[in-house]
Amino acid sequence: MPDDGNNPIPDWQRQDLPPMLSRRFEFENYPQTRRFLDGVAKLAEEAQHYPNLSFGKTYVSVTLDADGKKLTPDIIALAQKIDALVAKAG
Amino acid sequence: MPDDGNNPIPDWQRQDLPPMLSRRFEFENYPQTRRFLDGVAKLAEEAQHYPNLSFGKTYVSVTLDADGKKLTPDIIALAQKIDALVAKAG
Repeated sequence: MPDDGNNPIPDWQRQDLPPMLSRRFEFENYPQTRRFLDGVAKLAEEAQHYPNLSFGKTYVSVTLDADGKKLTPDIIALAQKIDALVAKAG
Repeated sequence: MPDDGNNPIPDWQRQDLPPMLSRRFEFENYPQTRRFLDGVAKLAEEAQHYPNLSFGKTYVSVTLDADGKKLTPDIIALAQKIDALVAKAG
């Protein structure tokens, strides 16, 4: 876990123009990938904030953007909840 | 629907190196997008062929690849079934 004072959340790549957070998750098999995707969908619906997701059989890339505005605590909280899905699965 | 003798399936972009088919689908709202994604997941599981998907709140981009080999009739059939999901929804 890199120590990066500018990054509000470890393990995620932060981009500033436009502001977004992204992280790629790798899985061992499709059922794991699917379970993670379903979890992300549930969190997105609860937060009413929809990430952009790219995925294949054993990976998911999650990008959370802020509509060109600042990354809010809500967006960072969503990223933390997504991380927690993997912690639970692992 | 363009008449393209080289393309085994209309509406999809075909790429040859490596062989793949892709199509972007747009939706009016997230529930429609979600329903489509669930349908694609079910078809992928049945076909045991996993597309690469990118999606956000109201769009899904589907890419079917052939592991660097030729596009098989099975892959084209999967694309047709994915098209049929939208025809049903519309």
